[in-house]
Amino acid sequence: MAVGAQTDHVDVLIVGAGPAGLMMATWLAKCGVKTRIVDKRGTKVFNGQADGLQCRTLEIFDSFGFAHRAWIESNHMLEISLWNPDEKGVLRRSSRIPDTIPGISRFQQVVLHQGRIERFFLDAINEFSEGKVSVERGVIPTSLEIDEKTVEDPEAYPITVNLRHLSEEEARPKQTATSVNGTVIQDGLFRSNLSPDDTAEMIKAAELNQKADTVEIVKAKYMLGADGAHSWVRKELGFKLEGESTDYIWGVLDIVPITDFPDIRMRCAIHSANSGSVMVIPRENKLVRLYIQLTTTEKIGDQDSRADRSWITPDVILESAQRIMAPYKLSYRKLDWWTAYQIGQRVGSSFSAHERVFLAGDAVHTHSPKAGQGMNVSMQDSFNLGWKIATVVKGLANRSILKTYESERKGIAKALIDFDHKFSRLFSGRPAKDIMDEEGISMDKFKEAFEKGNMFASGIAVDYGRSNIVSKPDPDNEASKAAKLQALASEVKLGMRIPSVKVLNQSDARPWHLQELLRSNGTWRVIVFPGNIDLEGQKKRMNSLCDKLSGPSSFLKRFTPPSARYDSVIEVLTVHAAKRQDHEIFDFPEVLRPYDEVDGWDYNKIFADDQSYHEGYGRLYETFGISPDQGCVVILRPDQYVSYIGELDDYESLDGFFSGFLIPQGETKEPKA
Amino acid sequence: MAVGAQTDHVDVLIVGAGPAGLMMATWLAKCGVKTRIVDKRGTKVFNGQADGLQCRTLEIFDSFGFAHRAWIESNHMLEISLWNPDEKGVLRRSSRIPDTIPGISRFQQVVLHQGRIERFFLDAINEFSEGKVSVERGVIPTSLEIDEKTVEDPEAYPITVNLRHLSEEEARPKQTATSVNGTVIQDGLFRSNLSPDDTAEMIKAAELNQKADTVEIVKAKYMLGADGAHSWVRKELGFKLEGESTDYIWGVLDIVPITDFPDIRMRCAIHSANSGSVMVIPRENKLVRLYIQLTTTEKIGDQDSRADRSWITPDVILESAQRIMAPYKLSYRKLDWWTAYQIGQRVGSSFSAHERVFLAGDAVHTHSPKAGQGMNVSMQDSFNLGWKIATVVKGLANRSILKTYESERKGIAKALIDFDHKFSRLFSGRPAKDIMDEEGISMDKFKEAFEKGNMFASGIAVDYGRSNIVSKPDPDNEASKAAKLQALASEVKLGMRIPSVKVLNQSDARPWHLQELLRSNGTWRVIVFPGNIDLEGQKKRMNSLCDKLSGPSSFLKRFTPPSARYDSVIEVLTVHAAKRQDHEIFDFPEVLRPYDEVDGWDYNKIFADDQSYHEGYGRLYETFGISPDQGCVVILRPDQYVSYIGELDDYESLDGFFSGFLIPQGETKEPKA
Repeated sequence: MAVGAQTDHVDVLIVGAGPAGLMMATWLAKCGVKTRIVDKRGTKVFNGQADGLQCRTLEIFDSFGFAHRAWIESNHMLEISLWNPDEKGVLRRSSRIPDTIPGISRFQQVVLHQGRIERFFLDAINEFSEGKVSVERGVIPTSLEIDEKTVEDPEAYPITVNLRHLSEEEARPKQTATSVNGTVIQDGLFRSNLSPDDTAEMIKAAELNQKADTVEIVKAKYMLGADGAHSWVRKELGFKLEGESTDYIWGVLDIVPITDFPDIRMRCAIHSANSGSVMVIPRENKLVRLYIQLTTTEKIGDQDSRADRSWITPDVILESAQRIMAPYKLSYRKLDWWTAYQIGQRVGSSFSAHERVFLAGDAVHTHSPKAGQGMNVSMQDSFNLGWKIATVVKGLANRSILKTYESERKGIAKALIDFDHKFSRLFSGRPAKDIMDEEGISMDKFKEAFEKGNMFASGIAVDYGRSNIVSKPDPDNEASKAAKLQALASEVKLGMRIPSVKVLNQSDARPWHLQELLRSNGTWRVIVFPGNIDLEGQKKRMNSLCDKLSGPSSFLKRFTPPSARYDSVIEVLTVHAAKRQDHEIFDFPEVLRPYDEVDGWDYNKIFADDQSYHEGYGRLYETFGISPDQGCVVILRPDQYVSYIGELDDYESLDGFFSGFLIPQGETKEPKA
Repeated sequence: MAVGAQTDHVDVLIVGAGPAGLMMATWLAKCGVKTRIVDKRGTKVFNGQADGLQCRTLEIFDSFGFAHRAWIESNHMLEISLWNPDEKGVLRRSSRIPDTIPGISRFQQVVLHQGRIERFFLDAINEFSEGKVSVERGVIPTSLEIDEKTVEDPEAYPITVNLRHLSEEEARPKQTATSVNGTVIQDGLFRSNLSPDDTAEMIKAAELNQKADTVEIVKAKYMLGADGAHSWVRKELGFKLEGESTDYIWGVLDIVPITDFPDIRMRCAIHSANSGSVMVIPRENKLVRLYIQLTTTEKIGDQDSRADRSWITPDVILESAQRIMAPYKLSYRKLDWWTAYQIGQRVGSSFSAHERVFLAGDAVHTHSPKAGQGMNVSMQDSFNLGWKIATVVKGLANRSILKTYESERKGIAKALIDFDHKFSRLFSGRPAKDIMDEEGISMDKFKEAFEKGNMFASGIAVDYGRSNIVSKPDPDNEASKAAKLQALASEVKLGMRIPSVKVLNQSDARPWHLQELLRSNGTWRVIVFPGNIDLEGQKKRMNSLCDKLSGPSSFLKRFTPPSARYDSVIEVLTVHAAKRQDHEIFDFPEVLRPYDEVDGWDYNKIFADDQSYHEGYGRLYETFGISPDQGCVVILRPDQYVSYIGELDDYESLDGFFSGFLIPQGETKEPKA
């Protein structure tokens, strides 16, 4: 430990300011947690790099308020074309499928380069933290110690990290080094009209030298290693990535294409008869990305470790693409970025040490970029983790919920690797000439895999297992109970994110997508679905629930700090199935529309499943499989995943669920675990 | 003229940086015209003031790329409630109507305070001009001279204006002076999270003193007086506002209400039996605006000029509202802004001097704010004018098109005054007790007027008359021709803005609202509707048109400067009615998808009227009343208004239309007029 160095105390230290680290910082800024985020690079990325955004990722962005920025700037991918040799060996479009399965989300998959996505995060972090949190660039950790004796003490800072501030030269990103023979491609994107707000970043980079070579000590309660495939944090923890490297070498070209290929603005999977495969990803600003398999016969060098890539140039990649796409012509005048890679498919052995130091993103899973999954899964790692740490740091929940990070995300990482493995093999193989050609890949099977993969690739299929925050009954012991509770809202799946349709605000008739009400701010939601409140029985059951919710020992009061707003820990929302115009908010118990002596009644808690004037009819009860004659109550986690489904008036089960991990406030703050 | 003062030459000088002036500057920045914009106030407004945004205004904002900012931040008004005394004199909701007529626009009326709207303009101006144009605050013009000998010379700068830079104290806005007895209401809004980007403005205001009391001379080709109801420019020109003042005094309160009135988040018109009327306008940030008629019996002072308003306080206004809204309770803890006004309804005698100096906004029409029209009509004044001046300044069109500013906007201003007059009278009157009560206002008539007024208030109903840029045949002499051409696209009305539905990009299947393709950039559009191109006849007619469009003397080439991009003066868009998947862009003549040697073919010109995967089916041909067996060609002005409708293959009429006012390029630039 450096002598005389300054010591700083933070709740959370984040290492790495790529998408996974930035997502974490966004959560913590939003929840008001004291955070620092450091990155060894001197500037953020300005072009190239991963760039697909899943529907689920856009839903998450929207929950932080910036999905519209990605939606406006990105290229939207609507259709996938599959091109294969016909029986004469001539390239033909064999089929078209929608890129995003219709109906699964209000967003569709889009493409935008990583630099812009990082910009949205940086702006959000700045706004949420009121300027208090910003990425410290040109900073690397040099030592990590964990005091194992205090890891279970909620008040302790068991983590000690030394940070060194680099000089500007040390911190300069070596982006073009991704190509070993190093043709430097002019990066014009950061000067385009899409990125006017990066100027400040560039200036900041030049200021690094002021702190160069100083060292400081940070004591942290929690830490996230989001520092990429070569993660320093992972190595310090002694964790391994398990899995294997593939033989395939891929080239990537980002160009403005000049071509008579008719589907160049579609996402295409092109299999040639004998020259390999190309994946076409149309991008923003007229760019198109080509992923080209450089056939193994061209491969040189050591096959056991990294292959020699010095023979790979943009021309080599282009010529390969031209062979695959013949007889169509392909050339370009503008090259934006290019690279080549040979990637392993690996998953981390462990995702956390003592639930104090966590790993996310490429630090715990690496795979091929073609499926456009890496950045999404990485961001979703820390989207899963951020609110959990925030809730624990704020003393609202006990540490037991932190175990769910590994139990939930490790399975996703494994599924990603399986998907990538299968998909890469199908994509890289030679198309079968006919049904007897067993070594070739069946193009029907490829299409089938592509369609199935689409559901996985949307991010919507994520299904978290049973835990103290996902109240799935044990299917072995409680099969009938599981079926009964799930049947109350048959299309709202326990462990999955809640679907979304439009509902109308009872007070002003404005249509909102249900998910738009579920902003990421760390709050749990109890959604009361009272059904048709014109039915006397339903109204009675709703009132009976509300009597208990408004009682002095209700979980709403018990788990909310006395000085905090009524909806800061658990927010109650209501969506009823009667006609909006037949009711007013004063028809509902006050606990569903709380009173504030400055702001009056809360007009943003009660909604109707009814026809809107301009934006259709969500038909929520029908879509969610909830009977208006029965209703139900759903608990959502702060990340929109479904924790619990229960009977409308079963207050006790709600109370029992929250009592499993929330800490009573205004009393001793001992964790219950 | 000051001795030794500096002289600057600009294409356009704008006086006044309210919404009308800013809209003008936005156009000119977008079109690359050399512009200065000055305002006597030291800062922009931060709260209070006009705040309704019509659907048409949002369409216009979207054409400049910032409608989404207003849409996200604003309060959306969906429903209007009408409240009247029932037969026992008790206040009841008598009916509900949609606030925006369903189907007339993809936007609905919203409310957001003027400070934010000005912010969107300032950001757009900065972006479009790459920082070259910004509002110069604390600057007032002190003299105006027009050299009448050179007003018809396109190269001349006939306008000379002296500008004086004020000291910070002189330039400070006196916003609270709207209440004579001057209770200063704390304005917290500019510190809210909605306005983080105003800090720079505040700092800039403090820097005014550096230039204080310097004078400079500006020579301009054109000038806009957008300097409000007390317009200095108008007075210099010697123009009058014609019309009269009303007796009604209105109070305005912006509060966070605490009330048991159930419709406080709806737009409401409340008529009490004997205590007057309230209009309720729900706003952003929990605010509600109340417009309250302060009954004439309470009026004191000189009735012929301005009434004495010194007795009006927030308490007086609130008590009035409480009487009107009884038996409902109303109070507040937060007051954001308040004012009182007695307004005249007046229209300017002339809208321009020599088509060199123009007036827009409150400088040429004043009226009551209740209908939420003032700011919208003001912005639409300069939206009408901006592209015309830009086109003339750039030497693309002759000066004749400038005459259409007054011919088009004066009628709108008069219609606004008529609407306001009628609406105010109905709103201010006492409700009729029964059918025999002839002095009272019939509530059925009020509802009818409200519903009719809604179409006017949307801004969609604007219908410009026949001119050299609106090719309406003379109905007296050419009735049959008029009917025949209009019938080719029966729902696309000559002189009105083109409606919008979704169409699919032929190249990538992405759905776009047609209007989203019609960005405000100064470009004329020829939209080719070839109909169903699977029909041999339709394809032939399309090809025949395209042969002429691509000819060496085509109007596309003749009116475009040799060095300019192919679509910079006139852009050709195509929307066909065949199935998208049955065609590729290479099925269409190249003039419909122009080739560029760097960017390849243009993928953003050809669209299909077909079913989308995720966003429905626009059914454009059906909605627009165009037969797929016949097709047509439509010419749109740069402001989306319909200039011309003609037969699909009638190239000559298209050429004739443009030849009426565009100037051939690459030749002598003499105006043709």
